[in-house]
Amino acid sequence: MASNSFGNIFKITTWGESHGKAIGVVIDGCPAGLEIDVSEIHAALALRAPGKNPYMSPRTEEDKAEILSGVFEGKTTGTPICILIPNQDARPNSYEPIKNLLRPSHANYTYLEKYGIFDYRGGGRASGRETACRVAAGVIAKKFLQYKGIQIIAYIKQIGTIEALVESDDVELIRTLTYQSPVFCPDAEVARAIIALLETTQNKGNSLGGLVEFRAYSVPVGLGDPIYEKLEAKLAHAMMSLPATKGFEIGAGFHAVTMQGSEHNDLFMHEQGKIKTETNHAGGTLGGMSTGMPLIGRVAFKPTASIKQSQATLTITGESASLELPAGSRHDPCVAIRAVPVVEAMVALVLADALLLNRCAKL
Amino acid sequence: MASNSFGNIFKITTWGESHGKAIGVVIDGCPAGLEIDVSEIHAALALRAPGKNPYMSPRTEEDKAEILSGVFEGKTTGTPICILIPNQDARPNSYEPIKNLLRPSHANYTYLEKYGIFDYRGGGRASGRETACRVAAGVIAKKFLQYKGIQIIAYIKQIGTIEALVESDDVELIRTLTYQSPVFCPDAEVARAIIALLETTQNKGNSLGGLVEFRAYSVPVGLGDPIYEKLEAKLAHAMMSLPATKGFEIGAGFHAVTMQGSEHNDLFMHEQGKIKTETNHAGGTLGGMSTGMPLIGRVAFKPTASIKQSQATLTITGESASLELPAGSRHDPCVAIRAVPVVEAMVALVLADALLLNRCAKL
Amino acid sequence: MASNSFGNIFKITTWGESHGKAIGVVIDGCPAGLEIDVSEIHAALALRAPGKNPYMSPRTEEDKAEILSGVFEGKTTGTPICILIPNQDARPNSYEPIKNLLRPSHANYTYLEKYGIFDYRGGGRASGRETACRVAAGVIAKKFLQYKGIQIIAYIKQIGTIEALVESDDVELIRTLTYQSPVFCPDAEVARAIIALLETTQNKGNSLGGLVEFRAYSVPVGLGDPIYEKLEAKLAHAMMSLPATKGFEIGAGFHAVTMQGSEHNDLFMHEQGKIKTETNHAGGTLGGMSTGMPLIGRVAFKPTASIKQSQATLTITGESASLELPAGSRHDPCVAIRAVPVVEAMVALVLADALLLNRCAKL
Amino acid sequence: MASNSFGNIFKITTWGESHGKAIGVVIDGCPAGLEIDVSEIHAALALRAPGKNPYMSPRTEEDKAEILSGVFEGKTTGTPICILIPNQDARPNSYEPIKNLLRPSHANYTYLEKYGIFDYRGGGRASGRETACRVAAGVIAKKFLQYKGIQIIAYIKQIGTIEALVESDDVELIRTLTYQSPVFCPDAEVARAIIALLETTQNKGNSLGGLVEFRAYSVPVGLGDPIYEKLEAKLAHAMMSLPATKGFEIGAGFHAVTMQGSEHNDLFMHEQGKIKTETNHAGGTLGGMSTGMPLIGRVAFKPTASIKQSQATLTITGESASLELPAGSRHDPCVAIRAVPVVEAMVALVLADALLLNRCAKL
Repeated sequence: MASNSFGNIFKITTWGESHGKAIGVVIDGCPAGLEIDVSEIHAALALRAPGKNPYMSPRTEEDKAEILSGVFEGKTTGTPICILIPNQDARPNSYEPIKNLLRPSHANYTYLEKYGIFDYRGGGRASGRETACRVAAGVIAKKFLQYKGIQIIAYIKQIGTIEALVESDDVELIRTLTYQSPVFCPDAEVARAIIALLETTQNKGNSLGGLVEFRAYSVPVGLGDPIYEKLEAKLAHAMMSLPATKGFEIGAGFHAVTMQGSEHNDLFMHEQGKIKTETNHAGGTLGGMSTGMPLIGRVAFKPTASIKQSQATLTITGESASLELPAGSRHDPCVAIRAVPVVEAMVALVLADALLLNRCAKL
Repeated sequence: MASNSFGNIFKITTWGESHGKAIGVVIDGCPAGLEIDVSEIHAALALRAPGKNPYMSPRTEEDKAEILSGVFEGKTTGTPICILIPNQDARPNSYEPIKNLLRPSHANYTYLEKYGIFDYRGGGRASGRETACRVAAGVIAKKFLQYKGIQIIAYIKQIGTIEALVESDDVELIRTLTYQSPVFCPDAEVARAIIALLETTQNKGNSLGGLVEFRAYSVPVGLGDPIYEKLEAKLAHAMMSLPATKGFEIGAGFHAVTMQGSEHNDLFMHEQGKIKTETNHAGGTLGGMSTGMPLIGRVAFKPTASIKQSQATLTITGESASLELPAGSRHDPCVAIRAVPVVEAMVALVLADALLLNRCAKL
Repeated sequence: MASNSFGNIFKITTWGESHGKAIGVVIDGCPAGLEIDVSEIHAALALRAPGKNPYMSPRTEEDKAEILSGVFEGKTTGTPICILIPNQDARPNSYEPIKNLLRPSHANYTYLEKYGIFDYRGGGRASGRETACRVAAGVIAKKFLQYKGIQIIAYIKQIGTIEALVESDDVELIRTLTYQSPVFCPDAEVARAIIALLETTQNKGNSLGGLVEFRAYSVPVGLGDPIYEKLEAKLAHAMMSLPATKGFEIGAGFHAVTMQGSEHNDLFMHEQGKIKTETNHAGGTLGGMSTGMPLIGRVAFKPTASIKQSQATLTITGESASLELPAGSRHDPCVAIRAVPVVEAMVALVLADALLLNRCAKL
Repeated sequence: MASNSFGNIFKITTWGESHGKAIGVVIDGCPAGLEIDVSEIHAALALRAPGKNPYMSPRTEEDKAEILSGVFEGKTTGTPICILIPNQDARPNSYEPIKNLLRPSHANYTYLEKYGIFDYRGGGRASGRETACRVAAGVIAKKFLQYKGIQIIAYIKQIGTIEALVESDDVELIRTLTYQSPVFCPDAEVARAIIALLETTQNKGNSLGGLVEFRAYSVPVGLGDPIYEKLEAKLAHAMMSLPATKGFEIGAGFHAVTMQGSEHNDLFMHEQGKIKTETNHAGGTLGGMSTGMPLIGRVAFKPTASIKQSQATLTITGESASLELPAGSRHDPCVAIRAVPVVEAMVALVLADALLLNRCAKL
């Protein structure tokens, strides 16, 4: 089943395994005339890079992307854009010792059952490394959105029970604070507490779950398509296609379960000649289409599955066994942190596609 | 944009407005040879019917569906199945008084902005009535799944802060208890508390949010397709395409944010010669593919937007106004209740499609 | 496999068997604001109607369509438009005598092999009756195209070896002449010869192949999308999805095989400030995109498979048998004639979709 | 618009310009477990290679493909397969002199109009070079088909008015004869006449059209899906997506226009316990599904647009001009010849996809 593509008009197809020669993405349907430079992709990939902070698994070299097609004299041409990212620091052999073990909360069991074969090296296709391709494609989507005045930001909202407060609606400020923080959390005090918690947890060989919040500002009214292509349905699909995600919510989200209508309803009002709502429990959509209010939602990530504690398991042929990760194996103590730029990229991909589709609503 | 279809191989397309002549659904891609009778569809639609309980808006006649195509001598033929449901109790004129008002937490604002025109009668296309088509299609999907041994159930897990406990894994028992309950809640004691809350709330002209939980049993290993068609991504898309949904989670869901890896990881084990996991925080998928463990997730619904309290708003041309719902207007105090069979139908549609797609994984 | 839909943005889904209760079509993705009246659909269906001429199989009542959704106060709303056409003159029992025979050049063999079941009555889903839905949907597509100034016409170009000459580029004139002709042939002299041939052939219980030509005028430059969604590829797909088609060509078509480059190349020139080509061997596309020159192509139809001569065949269980069509059975002597409005409809559906997709090419 | 993909389950996405760094293809949905080696791709690409014969444009180096993903330990894994083909002999500067001219029968005019920008070097994305990616992907599709016993062959049927006779149904024999011939024509005598014609034409700086015929043997009954995904519709779409194609036909094709039903109908019969037809005017499909008889069709190619004669044209800004191709520019005298392996690849891609889709027809 052809399941490595996302989007309708602005569409990406990704390929590549964690420890193969390269990974890559084809972006098809990007409008022609958009200025793009490979340095912009490098800057975005660097946010995921080693040394950025100790809370991401240390791959030793920076990712270098190449734009192989679709850009001519610095501009997109309307033809498919292929971006290739070589796997420079692949260590395929380090996974030999555990290749015959079912790894708890990992995907090797289901891949083996479904396909009868699995490239186990570094998680193969199931690795988080695939998300680098989403980030690269997201750069182009964001470029298009910025051209239309739309701004997107994502950040760590919560790790463990430590929750950040992000009251500002100044997207540039949030972005600066977020990307200054080694844990992508714009609330500096909370960031410090998170770092302390990460250290304690990492020392015990354990890992943590996390919550990523995203926002989009200046989204025009009407993006998203009823009934089955509602904007929140596309966003949910996008986010739940990320590895390690367990939940998605928009606006008031699960909190809406305990609210009453009189409390949850966002009342329409004027502000500077524009129709707005007094509150934004909806999170920026009604009937599956954007309202023009800030788009806001959250994505729940499970704790990193790879922990440095011994775990009872089975071999792939069903015998009892014990899994101990190899000494040099690389794992983030909290995958949610590294997911921040990826969530941002997925919002951008959804909105770029919705923006193009919206051109077809009227005569 | 063609957005009224859902699914890849087993695919539905719905059409129709709340107060038009009829609504309907075309099911394309259902395998040939499945026995189906219109009475099965009637039985499913009756669960949404008036008089079933006082907590659903009273449409006065039962829905009568007609199968117009795709079934020959009692069996599906592989050709598209059209099911038509006439709108017998349409009262288009009752919406005249409020047709020029923006309705808080409703979709008329975004429809008008996107399309420049909106059939306002009873919410038009944005009405929950569309979900009757999903229920009808879900009957056929469930028939196919049952043929393969898969069982699905959904129920009210929580309304307001009142939460049900559903410890059994006996799907028949849960189903019986659920459908005996006027609020689709299998925990009888909690159901009584919910009913009391609904009455109090309804008397105040207010409404409540709710949480629907779904489960699927005997799902084979390997359904769902990495990367962008993960089973949980399809389920999230399906659920967030329902009106009034604010969130989706699978397994431990948002609770995973506060968990540690050692706690969240589900350890592999044997049970009667089969590979299982000791816990099921994953909720039945790994790497986007089903594990064979019960599939379990939850959907958050906002409180019904239509409340019988006066609300400040604007007219569609932007003047300040006040919205009072007409005396005879029909609204559920909690849309989550009526959504229970719809959530069940959406799980069925996702699984039927995934089951067929899975036939293409191997040589 | 969900294969009863056509189009990307402007998308149709058809359903229904020849002798079931009804057939119908859902048009999803039609832009909002288009004026449409059911009488326009009736007018188009009447072109296929009985009594129109003796060269079409006589169904005794005119088709009456109903628009069940998607149109409000006379205009499309952007929601799916369902058009239902009841099967008023169904005679399901008349096919009993031949239900167990493989019918030469018919589809019952392949349907039975693929699905294990077949609604044999009047050809079931494989009947040309499905094309009435395409004509109904084509009315709406043409309405949209006319709003954009695009005009489409199709006509009989050849039956047997008798070939029409259509030199005019006046689309209104061609349309008038075509629809005046009982055999949809704008060349009156040739039409007379064709009628004589049809009579002779019909008297012998035999049937004839035919060639339908289509043209579209005032098509803007750039419709169609490289590489796999070239305009001619979409048209070819559309035409070869019609029953009884054996070939498709555009511009010089198969004649190009015998041409030299110096002869086939269309040289660019100016005409009234616009870029045109001196000749139009391309038939209106280059690189898969429309050039602005008239779009012109042809579709080959095989002779009607149902003939009133005895044919040796097999039963569905493989015994030798002889097929004699029942006395009252209804068959066109040449399916190409009735296909004329259908070809026109398919061109319209392709262009409406391409027109919308083209809105996404640039920033 | 995302238009660089083909197929549903077995799906390819191609990217790359003629004189960019590389071209490539992603094959998504190939079943897991298929043995594949890059040498098989090299062998197929070599059929298009320079020096193979003087009737193809001489690119000086052989294409070297790299499989970057989706294959592990020599077998496909079910994850996307990326094949990259570097552009070793790119000569981007040689197109400078003609970059501002509209080239007759070329795509630069429509690309410029649609996108406002065009990578003119060697035809950019519109170059026939893109078809190398189809050939590479076709190798994998053919591998899968061979595993299922299906054999495909294509060859030159006609160039100018010289037509080959291919009476054998021995696919191995036809293949051997075809690939021995410098012009891919299995009829040796006709091949010699074609070569003489090509020389004469090339000496005059002119070019020729051509007809490619394809056949597939041992196709199981039932491939293809009614109504809009008929096997012949998919094939037509596939073929008309190739550069320079002007027509497609199946079985009797356009000749059916002049046939009578009694002549065209293929009568069912037994042969060695299997149901066959006495003739095969249908060309291997009925009702859009394969009959089990040989699949046979033809594709018409226009003469190569690039000729070495002076042609009157316009500049891209509309001034009158004359086009003379640069001395060293490389062009086939007849594109149909090089298209032979591409047509074969496209048949394979269509059948591989149809074979997988067919797994979903029954319970």
